[in-house]
Amino acid sequence: MPDLVRISLLYDFYGAFLTKKQREFFELHFFKDWSLSEIAENFGVTRQNVSDVIHRSTALLEDYEGKLGLVKRFLTMTKDMERILKSLKELEPFVREEGKNRWRKIYRELAELVKEGCE
Amino acid sequence: MPDLVRISLLYDFYGAFLTKKQREFFELHFFKDWSLSEIAENFGVTRQNVSDVIHRSTALLEDYEGKLGLVKRFLTMTKDMERILKSLKELEPFVREEGKNRWRKIYRELAELVKEGCE
Repeated sequence: MPDLVRISLLYDFYGAFLTKKQREFFELHFFKDWSLSEIAENFGVTRQNVSDVIHRSTALLEDYEGKLGLVKRFLTMTKDMERILKSLKELEPFVREEGKNRWRKIYRELAELVKEGCE
Repeated sequence: MPDLVRISLLYDFYGAFLTKKQREFFELHFFKDWSLSEIAENFGVTRQNVSDVIHRSTALLEDYEGKLGLVKRFLTMTKDMERILKSLKELEPFVREEGKNRWRKIYRELAELVKEGCE
């Protein structure tokens, strides 16, 4: 999994445990693509300070995942759903014309759920 | 949701954050049905002490859920999957004979996933 996807998931799950300042620096750096120097300048702190805060935040998020493993659990569930969605797609030719609308509704709902799991 | 189901889920998700002692008392009381007095006697502490540990543990688990809301998120996902499973059941009469095995495999896999989500 690309690092940024993992970081987004960790932040999504455990970000509420970080302090306001940690969240602020973390979001600017990872999600708004600010450089460490830009954050430092904007907040009147050193680049080293920003770097420390972001590293500490990432380590904290990884610690929470190490303890609880809930991101891993969610990802496993999402992967299972993706496999089922694929099988459901392959079922379509075997659904009689009168059942196509039902099939489409189920497919759409499951696809939506898989998408939510990934976000 | 019955209290014990909620308590099991909270413990399942956030139990790793409790201390060894908190987990021990919590499990004996809620999952092995020991009374506070039985735990107290067995560990050579007061009944009040056991009661405090268990209340504190429950409050901690509720705090984590209040912050992260991951049990709620899991439950929502499971409920959505249950609804889809029901629709899938209703699709069966519209599946042609040659597709019945495929349908059964999908149904079984989704049912398994719903069950895991609830455990």
